[in-house]
Amino acid sequence: MIMVLKKESTSTQVDHLISWLKGQGLEVHIFPGDKGTVLGLIGDKKKIDIELLAGLEIVEAVRDVTEPFKQCNRRFCPEDTVISVGNAKIGGGHFALIAGPCSVENEEQILQVARQVKAGGAELLRGGAFKPRTSPYDFQGLGAEGIRLLLQAKRESGLPIVTEIMNINALELFAEVDVIQVGARNMQNFDLLKELGKTSKPILLKRGLANTLKELLMSAEYIMSEGNQNVILCERGIRTFDTYARNTLDLTAVPMLHELSHLPVVVDPSHATGKAGLVPPMAMAAVACGADGVMVEVHNDPLHALCDGAQSLDPEQFADLAKKIRALRSVI
Amino acid sequence: MIMVLKKESTSTQVDHLISWLKGQGLEVHIFPGDKGTVLGLIGDKKKIDIELLAGLEIVEAVRDVTEPFKQCNRRFCPEDTVISVGNAKIGGGHFALIAGPCSVENEEQILQVARQVKAGGAELLRGGAFKPRTSPYDFQGLGAEGIRLLLQAKRESGLPIVTEIMNINALELFAEVDVIQVGARNMQNFDLLKELGKTSKPILLKRGLANTLKELLMSAEYIMSEGNQNVILCERGIRTFDTYARNTLDLTAVPMLHELSHLPVVVDPSHATGKAGLVPPMAMAAVACGADGVMVEVHNDPLHALCDGAQSLDPEQFADLAKKIRALRSVI
Amino acid sequence: MIMVLKKESTSTQVDHLISWLKGQGLEVHIFPGDKGTVLGLIGDKKKIDIELLAGLEIVEAVRDVTEPFKQCNRRFCPEDTVISVGNAKIGGGHFALIAGPCSVENEEQILQVARQVKAGGAELLRGGAFKPRTSPYDFQGLGAEGIRLLLQAKRESGLPIVTEIMNINALELFAEVDVIQVGARNMQNFDLLKELGKTSKPILLKRGLANTLKELLMSAEYIMSEGNQNVILCERGIRTFDTYARNTLDLTAVPMLHELSHLPVVVDPSHATGKAGLVPPMAMAAVACGADGVMVEVHNDPLHALCDGAQSLDPEQFADLAKKIRALRSVI
Amino acid sequence: MIMVLKKESTSTQVDHLISWLKGQGLEVHIFPGDKGTVLGLIGDKKKIDIELLAGLEIVEAVRDVTEPFKQCNRRFCPEDTVISVGNAKIGGGHFALIAGPCSVENEEQILQVARQVKAGGAELLRGGAFKPRTSPYDFQGLGAEGIRLLLQAKRESGLPIVTEIMNINALELFAEVDVIQVGARNMQNFDLLKELGKTSKPILLKRGLANTLKELLMSAEYIMSEGNQNVILCERGIRTFDTYARNTLDLTAVPMLHELSHLPVVVDPSHATGKAGLVPPMAMAAVACGADGVMVEVHNDPLHALCDGAQSLDPEQFADLAKKIRALRSVI
Repeated sequence: MIMVLKKESTSTQVDHLISWLKGQGLEVHIFPGDKGTVLGLIGDKKKIDIELLAGLEIVEAVRDVTEPFKQCNRRFCPEDTVISVGNAKIGGGHFALIAGPCSVENEEQILQVARQVKAGGAELLRGGAFKPRTSPYDFQGLGAEGIRLLLQAKRESGLPIVTEIMNINALELFAEVDVIQVGARNMQNFDLLKELGKTSKPILLKRGLANTLKELLMSAEYIMSEGNQNVILCERGIRTFDTYARNTLDLTAVPMLHELSHLPVVVDPSHATGKAGLVPPMAMAAVACGADGVMVEVHNDPLHALCDGAQSLDPEQFADLAKKIRALRSVI
Repeated sequence: MIMVLKKESTSTQVDHLISWLKGQGLEVHIFPGDKGTVLGLIGDKKKIDIELLAGLEIVEAVRDVTEPFKQCNRRFCPEDTVISVGNAKIGGGHFALIAGPCSVENEEQILQVARQVKAGGAELLRGGAFKPRTSPYDFQGLGAEGIRLLLQAKRESGLPIVTEIMNINALELFAEVDVIQVGARNMQNFDLLKELGKTSKPILLKRGLANTLKELLMSAEYIMSEGNQNVILCERGIRTFDTYARNTLDLTAVPMLHELSHLPVVVDPSHATGKAGLVPPMAMAAVACGADGVMVEVHNDPLHALCDGAQSLDPEQFADLAKKIRALRSVI
Repeated sequence: MIMVLKKESTSTQVDHLISWLKGQGLEVHIFPGDKGTVLGLIGDKKKIDIELLAGLEIVEAVRDVTEPFKQCNRRFCPEDTVISVGNAKIGGGHFALIAGPCSVENEEQILQVARQVKAGGAELLRGGAFKPRTSPYDFQGLGAEGIRLLLQAKRESGLPIVTEIMNINALELFAEVDVIQVGARNMQNFDLLKELGKTSKPILLKRGLANTLKELLMSAEYIMSEGNQNVILCERGIRTFDTYARNTLDLTAVPMLHELSHLPVVVDPSHATGKAGLVPPMAMAAVACGADGVMVEVHNDPLHALCDGAQSLDPEQFADLAKKIRALRSVI
Repeated sequence: MIMVLKKESTSTQVDHLISWLKGQGLEVHIFPGDKGTVLGLIGDKKKIDIELLAGLEIVEAVRDVTEPFKQCNRRFCPEDTVISVGNAKIGGGHFALIAGPCSVENEEQILQVARQVKAGGAELLRGGAFKPRTSPYDFQGLGAEGIRLLLQAKRESGLPIVTEIMNINALELFAEVDVIQVGARNMQNFDLLKELGKTSKPILLKRGLANTLKELLMSAEYIMSEGNQNVILCERGIRTFDTYARNTLDLTAVPMLHELSHLPVVVDPSHATGKAGLVPPMAMAAVACGADGVMVEVHNDPLHALCDGAQSLDPEQFADLAKKIRALRSVI
């Protein structure tokens, strides 16, 4: 860690700070200069509060030259992590298409969509049983019954399933779920992350709407530091000033996360854009910049079918996209 | 709810949509026009998915003309809510100063700060026992022991206490806590909000870093819809492109929330700005635009004292600010 | 235009407003309803100030159901615009690679890079002569001399050139420039746009750092409404909270702009990301989601060459990217 | 300037970089360390491109320890700048109320508003003659005729006037204007800033919608570096994800700018919030956190008067606000 002290600091202030730092068990290297003193600190920084140091009157800047993430850091583990789920693999050159409805609505719907996305080329089935909704008055998902229907669809289709957890107390319902999703709003629900870190299930961790890549990786680190190395990162759009699409899909996150971490990175263009017409081009773009998987919403609803719109693709649109993605992957 | 249909919609498409909407139990009023048809929908919109409708190919726009928040809505309850905590009152013309350290560190610290902020003019004592930290390797708070020390400080100082909950399974530890804080990262941890709605304790609900005012009010609604009407809203800065201060304190939220809702609104300039020097002017500004309370960090730490910086005020700075706030409130 | 009036408006207020609107020459259609009256307005809205109307106390909402952009609007001109520059074409299925150094530095540099990017597959040469810099103390470009050197490079290489204008009074220097660039900071320099609208040169209009797609299209409209239809839109990253890359490349803008407008859309991944390593994957992603061109920085500088970093690609990296883009375009 | 080199850099790479830096005329101090080498650079950094250096493969980070702003920097000029305009003074403890209509509409309007705001307590009259509008089809202001009417209002009321310039070629029309405003969209129109720097008139420089405080100060520096020290900074809201108010008023900018610079800081709550009801509380908040002036829109329009809404205050509301501001200033 590098601390740049202000030029106008008195030597008493500097000495006082240095002896305090040493008292915290840190090794302090001093580089005097005509623009102010620079301190190089070596040792266990967990004991000190960097924000506090940065706010001290005599401190110009503090820069941590080591990354705060360890287990998910590519520097410490250069090999790509490959997550195996059923017959599918994600990461390290393996690609997975994850598809299914936003919410599980009933038996007929989920079984039919499962068959359709499998036929179209999906490797995993997604579907929401517990739905985080902004309003307490909106539909909150089928809950335990939704999980039961997803497991039935898994048995019938052979597709492994991905579904979201919102409350750690519901964990036992997820015993046969293949991949547990943590939604954007829970990306920093640290107690939930810690508990999931005690399982061995793959966790699909969605980036929060206003979270940096560093924060996403630190949340992965919460899971990994408890022992579960099976984390899949998911970019699903961030919140910006623009309002044409629902959120701003930050695809540059894909190569940046690959540079910073060995974990696989999946992209969800359906939630990011909120418009079916934007899903295929953005799914293609995600593949072109190196995503290890794409997660898209697919429906079988007659109202959708009639109007050919909304956030979800219909089964034919999905099969067409899956074909294009395979062609694209053959050239990159 | 108003739906504006695209001019180029065919009458078959429009009829199909109208009959579907009626099938969902909605009353549909049709306003044909040369720019396209406008539909007015009346009835229980919980059954339908507005985002889905907005995404249909023939739909230009959907606008919900009723607010989604009910119990926190000033239209339905014009009287200001007043929250009573010990001898303090917040809202409806009553103002409270909430002060204390970021984290409870040890018995001596919290007892001393409690005495000092009481002497300086605080009505409530704040202090973190469970600390949400971006990194799993950072100090996570004293936990249950922190709560125990806060309760000791409460008994000795007579000040009611405010502290944060991160996990609903810890709720029983908060039995004697006066105000339970929900932090910015948990603002949309809906299962936590629902459980807190089953208690009768005042809840201080912090706005998330990227959450709109509507979303903040909907989260208050999660608590209130379960029966707990004692919600205090808290503006603590939002995340924007600017990086001089830690976050961007959105003070316009204060009069806007007062217009939209009858709930009291408190401002936390310490977390928003991250710099002690900015806390007094922004606390004054918060009072000037109508905040019902201000929450500031106060420390008693010799390192702080030495360097006269960091995010927290020292006890003298706090007492000085409290005096200025009283003078300001006397003229507004 | 649709105006939704508040339910609590009195009939006197509503009548007063309606007669004022009629006095402005608008046709007013009235749709009374139990949730409040809706007014449909037809006529020339240029005479009235929509923001003023939206702010009136009795007005719940105003929604303009017609798009504000006319000449760039795909609805009014469904055919893709194709811009021809020398032998290159941009738009309507034609793709162009634009490459060159950030700044023109000297004769040797620009002539060498021109040769190299032509050999690598570029259709146009870019280079900055007038450089918008945040600081007055930073290098501001070679100015008129830079233009002269670019024209020399054009003659020697045969590549048409793209370079930025910052001041309308410099327009005569651009007589032989093929494409005039308007930088992100000048996207809403309306007087500059109007003057460029009086020329017939292709204008490459970069999106401002905090501008919506609607604003970008309205700025194109400023150029087109003066008679110049040759506008190329350019996405180059927006400003958000995240700081890993320099800006957040908003690739979803590509299919959205194509839906809204017939103008070609080019992407600049070099300025958006600020890191050479991110340029190839984001250029590929831009092509995959339908960009009509990609603009990349290429240098010939030994310091760059040594360190293999920075924002610019070297000539070999560029040639490699150009080859990959051709392969990608063959499958989409 | 501090450069932190990556630990894995080879000594050949480091030596090569150091000799290149020395070749640029910089003094290079080398601090080897076990976490990588740190270089301290002293000399004229205008010759080198910091972004380029930061992007080099062997560079971990570059940090400029000197501020890039010189003439506006409080470190180099601790005394507050006081701008005198007619009888009004702004800065250094002097406060000015600036009021008037958004646009000059006609003689009767501007003369009447001038009388009203003077009676209400304004020290300066504002009014738009050249209006930057997103759409070329919207009202663009009265132009030269608007300036003429403002000067008439100045003569009749005795109030100095503030009005916006959009094009440097219009400068001669501003000969008798007291304060020239540079709008948010032109904050980085560097050629315009340079030309205004050659005049001696006070310049009211509005912060761009997505500009950092550093960028605002650098734009002030463009004016000052040409010789004009009379710059007034203006916070008028930034663009964020929230949409309840038009923009997010960043009041923390007031004390931050005062810390960084000696220039006066004015706040415009009318444009920031877009709603008349929010203008008084936010004007009060601006005063409470130390603003040197407040600029508010005041109208005399019967439609406004009828409906009691919109962005502008009416003359009575303005007079009431002026009185409250005086009371507030008496206690701070």
